[in-house]
Amino acid sequence: MTNVIRSFDRPHPDHVAEIAKFPPATLHEAQGRRGAVDSRIKPLAPGMHFCGPALTAACHIGDNLMIFEAISLAQPGDVLVMSAGNNHEQGGFGEVLATACSARKIAAFVVDAGVRDGSALRTLGLPVFSLGLCIKGTAKETVGTINHPIVLGGELIRPGDILAGDDDGLVVVRKEEILQVAKASAAREEDEAHLMASLRSGQPMDINARLAVMRAKGCTWGDRS
Amino acid sequence: MTNVIRSFDRPHPDHVAEIAKFPPATLHEAQGRRGAVDSRIKPLAPGMHFCGPALTAACHIGDNLMIFEAISLAQPGDVLVMSAGNNHEQGGFGEVLATACSARKIAAFVVDAGVRDGSALRTLGLPVFSLGLCIKGTAKETVGTINHPIVLGGELIRPGDILAGDDDGLVVVRKEEILQVAKASAAREEDEAHLMASLRSGQPMDINARLAVMRAKGCTWGDRS
Amino acid sequence: MTNVIRSFDRPHPDHVAEIAKFPPATLHEAQGRRGAVDSRIKPLAPGMHFCGPALTAACHIGDNLMIFEAISLAQPGDVLVMSAGNNHEQGGFGEVLATACSARKIAAFVVDAGVRDGSALRTLGLPVFSLGLCIKGTAKETVGTINHPIVLGGELIRPGDILAGDDDGLVVVRKEEILQVAKASAAREEDEAHLMASLRSGQPMDINARLAVMRAKGCTWGDRS
Amino acid sequence: MTNVIRSFDRPHPDHVAEIAKFPPATLHEAQGRRGAVDSRIKPLAPGMHFCGPALTAACHIGDNLMIFEAISLAQPGDVLVMSAGNNHEQGGFGEVLATACSARKIAAFVVDAGVRDGSALRTLGLPVFSLGLCIKGTAKETVGTINHPIVLGGELIRPGDILAGDDDGLVVVRKEEILQVAKASAAREEDEAHLMASLRSGQPMDINARLAVMRAKGCTWGDRS
Amino acid sequence: MTNVIRSFDRPHPDHVAEIAKFPPATLHEAQGRRGAVDSRIKPLAPGMHFCGPALTAACHIGDNLMIFEAISLAQPGDVLVMSAGNNHEQGGFGEVLATACSARKIAAFVVDAGVRDGSALRTLGLPVFSLGLCIKGTAKETVGTINHPIVLGGELIRPGDILAGDDDGLVVVRKEEILQVAKASAAREEDEAHLMASLRSGQPMDINARLAVMRAKGCTWGDRS
Amino acid sequence: MTNVIRSFDRPHPDHVAEIAKFPPATLHEAQGRRGAVDSRIKPLAPGMHFCGPALTAACHIGDNLMIFEAISLAQPGDVLVMSAGNNHEQGGFGEVLATACSARKIAAFVVDAGVRDGSALRTLGLPVFSLGLCIKGTAKETVGTINHPIVLGGELIRPGDILAGDDDGLVVVRKEEILQVAKASAAREEDEAHLMASLRSGQPMDINARLAVMRAKGCTWGDRS
Repeated sequence: MTNVIRSFDRPHPDHVAEIAKFPPATLHEAQGRRGAVDSRIKPLAPGMHFCGPALTAACHIGDNLMIFEAISLAQPGDVLVMSAGNNHEQGGFGEVLATACSARKIAAFVVDAGVRDGSALRTLGLPVFSLGLCIKGTAKETVGTINHPIVLGGELIRPGDILAGDDDGLVVVRKEEILQVAKASAAREEDEAHLMASLRSGQPMDINARLAVMRAKGCTWGDRS
Repeated sequence: MTNVIRSFDRPHPDHVAEIAKFPPATLHEAQGRRGAVDSRIKPLAPGMHFCGPALTAACHIGDNLMIFEAISLAQPGDVLVMSAGNNHEQGGFGEVLATACSARKIAAFVVDAGVRDGSALRTLGLPVFSLGLCIKGTAKETVGTINHPIVLGGELIRPGDILAGDDDGLVVVRKEEILQVAKASAAREEDEAHLMASLRSGQPMDINARLAVMRAKGCTWGDRS
Repeated sequence: MTNVIRSFDRPHPDHVAEIAKFPPATLHEAQGRRGAVDSRIKPLAPGMHFCGPALTAACHIGDNLMIFEAISLAQPGDVLVMSAGNNHEQGGFGEVLATACSARKIAAFVVDAGVRDGSALRTLGLPVFSLGLCIKGTAKETVGTINHPIVLGGELIRPGDILAGDDDGLVVVRKEEILQVAKASAAREEDEAHLMASLRSGQPMDINARLAVMRAKGCTWGDRS
Repeated sequence: MTNVIRSFDRPHPDHVAEIAKFPPATLHEAQGRRGAVDSRIKPLAPGMHFCGPALTAACHIGDNLMIFEAISLAQPGDVLVMSAGNNHEQGGFGEVLATACSARKIAAFVVDAGVRDGSALRTLGLPVFSLGLCIKGTAKETVGTINHPIVLGGELIRPGDILAGDDDGLVVVRKEEILQVAKASAAREEDEAHLMASLRSGQPMDINARLAVMRAKGCTWGDRS
Repeated sequence: MTNVIRSFDRPHPDHVAEIAKFPPATLHEAQGRRGAVDSRIKPLAPGMHFCGPALTAACHIGDNLMIFEAISLAQPGDVLVMSAGNNHEQGGFGEVLATACSARKIAAFVVDAGVRDGSALRTLGLPVFSLGLCIKGTAKETVGTINHPIVLGGELIRPGDILAGDDDGLVVVRKEEILQVAKASAAREEDEAHLMASLRSGQPMDINARLAVMRAKGCTWGDRS
Repeated sequence: MTNVIRSFDRPHPDHVAEIAKFPPATLHEAQGRRGAVDSRIKPLAPGMHFCGPALTAACHIGDNLMIFEAISLAQPGDVLVMSAGNNHEQGGFGEVLATACSARKIAAFVVDAGVRDGSALRTLGLPVFSLGLCIKGTAKETVGTINHPIVLGGELIRPGDILAGDDDGLVVVRKEEILQVAKASAAREEDEAHLMASLRSGQPMDINARLAVMRAKGCTWGDRS
């Protein structure tokens, strides 16, 4: 097995831009309720959001050796996604590495571990998604992988897949499905906009389809307990 | 068993207003340390708070079929309380349903599951209490109940009981105990106000009662380790 | 065993001030990745921070009897650190006790339990670090200890050890290591400042040491998957 | 509120015997997927099982004061069900209390806390269902309730409801639904027995109903990936 | 997307047999500390073990619709691996489905959910690996996938990959790496057998390599604290 | 700081034998409800039990470098106690190391991590207490400590303190309190034996002291709900 793969095919920036128009929740529904990452991985501050191709790294638990080379291999707009043992009690990413990421115009840093230097990271502005803040330092000793497929928060992330995040969490869009997901997302957004406009104008919600399901399954109604 | 009960006795609005004067922590103590819901159910944003009679719904885990009819049955001021399996990895409530709730002047939405569209929900202003933000969509397939007693966060909630929430979390006040809880809460608040005024004016805390308990149970004192 | 020890040796305020210059994450690394408390114990509001000698108390789970006497024994600048069973479902500290702490110029309150009266506590300004907000009241019945060594979040805290906290969490500095930790922290901060200035000026990160470790352990590189 | 209610209506022993014929999983399905208690509450040893009317007690977290009086009020065949804060880090029930339960011919002890004296309890044979083994002792200081409705593992238990447990966990059967649940359980068992006999004889499972649901919802089939 | 893929390439039975010689812990180390599934997924009874090619299914949380067709598509020796939302509070697999699996000579059933009918399953003997026993029933309503790659316990499982399990837990071996992993495992077992024979004969452990690492990293030694 | 301290004062074997007479639950109560370790650390198999002086080691999370030297420093009867980050998802101890421990007549191995080779460990018979079985291998790269005080499961363990374990879990007895704890344990056992003999002979439990507490705190009684 080759540990470090230096490059991967990135989706065309115009395609990334198509996906970036939609929030992760819409993308998730539009692709058939797929791609949502475990909700414990959250932005460091409300309002942080991003969209870009994943550059992946895998580290041993309690170790961040691979992150340095991963940053060096990143191109502007890449999202650095690191699996490190799905453990919140380690903080192997902080102000120095975030500064290095920003200098390389990395779009976001995402990890299934803790991070530290919380107030500095919020000031810096790099979107950081993690299991929370943790002070504990990491070793730099164990070889992992770069640009192999990884599992993050229960979801497969391959290099070049698009990862999108906001307050709600993270969604992966497969690189081969970008345009169809963008199209389905636009349709969904339009439907929801109409529905919400109708609700705001005082129209009741049309729940006939739901009532039909309830009736078909034997639901019963009464007036009082 | 009748699944959907269309109506229930709501406490008089003046009685709800009596309870609404007090924060949940005070209500909890005033009724003898009862009624607090599991603290993992929290407001979506600091400062969200509410007080109103519970309209209850119960859903299968990963399913939100019953919520549509529940919203339709709500009256202004009702708190829509939904049990859905005590599972944070599902987000069956978002901007569209919140808009529907607001249009019906529902006082708050409370659920033992995740919700999504976090930034939109914060803008909308409807108080939403949940296990956190999660993107994952839900099925709409399984019949549950509306306006039956439910268990939410380890506490029984009956239709028409008052549910109150703020940053600290949630407390239920039994509909048959409203006036006595309001009275005990007022007494408690007055005591605490006096105590805090005394502390702010530089008076030491009177801990004689605590010292008496310690002494009675054999506590020992020394000057140095 | 003597339950309550009334006094302990506090480090000199100048020494506390030396430690207070550095954030907890720096202190943790500077003393060899030691002293970090479990990251689940967090500030009630972003930006809360403190540094001071620990006055320790230990309570039975669901009980806060010892806190009253502990506050009475505190001197200005002390950090009141309480172990109470490592359980978030209890809120034995709120506005009244925080007011008492503030009146005695206590520097911070730290506990491995929940607290309540969240919005009042944020207004009051006392740094409070806990497992989160919880309404549930506590008993005042069981004798514990004051100014004995305690374990908080997996870390030993002795009376007079320095505890420092910010958004990232908490670190303990042993009272006998203060000056050496301050010195090592200053050196570390200087190194990091240079490194970040270099990164901001467009210099790439020097990762040769990391690459050397990777090579020594047999890491392999390739250009494409 | 009256804390201790000395007696309650027990279902007729013949009715309890009707329910005791069926395992909890069957009872749960037969009453429409209702009544299952949180699966973290488990028997102390494989094979422990019981069925009987619930005598309920509620204690403060870390306290077992109410259990002594509860045992005194029990009648042979009662199941002693205690809520104590849903916390595994306390062991307020062990060999002495189990001996007292056995002497009173209590059918089982169920609690949302830990228990201790594991090997002695296994020898004694009293079915004990808990969150696990924990050594930590409890206070005996805080008044709770006896024979009020309680919530245990997310489920409401009223005095006189039937609680049944085996390796799979616990199910409550409402006292007013005993006969209908027994009847539905018998039907379900018969169906399952036929089905399993057919499977054992080499017949394939009839999955046409499942395939119909899949097709109706747009499922697609292919031969190879 | 095609939901159900009827067939997949299975490794040659002789290759499966090569892997079946080794316990999962050995396979994990032999392939470079890769492939271990989250340790919360465990056998229903001590001693259960298996090894075979994965037939994969993915279900919505709280739903088991896809399992019926998955069983129908299985061939003798297949391991049925199902992802169902990584949630222990559901029991969508029990005696009937296990009987159907056994009738088809399925080698094992593995799921990131609960299962039920624990004592019957232990009698039946089919190796079942799960998050534990839970009574709660599931819906049969939501279309998922069969024989797509899935994530189970943080690890990617592709149809035809080999999954092996014993008391320690589960490991996946990639179908394209079978022979090299078997070879490396044999070498590792031989080394360990020699080492243990040496230890049993009274020879001390050779820790020179460990001491060299410790010294190189500045470890210090002393005789007394 | 000296990392490795080669020796420490062990309590006299006769004193260890005094403590070994009592189960951990009795020791915990006899020393005033102190010393119990987090109940998640449990024996690998029912019936495993031990008592002996602690030889302590501390490792970085996901790393077991220090264990080799720790075994080398052990004397017959020592209990090897290792803190390794309080993380169940690692298995840095298995059959080889257990064989080495047995060869040195180590009394038990205790760790706040997972272990592996479960069935081999059960056969070997060395008492092993851990967070459970986990396959995942560890690094051997990071220097920790040997024979420094450590925190394990929320409890301080110093070299030479006595650690005792059985099915219920683990308790530490301070080396300077051995004889007084043994004496108090004997008294407690005698009391409990009398009490249980009385209960078995049909005498009711004397609950007058409990009733007095209940009455003093305002408990009320009634006959029916």
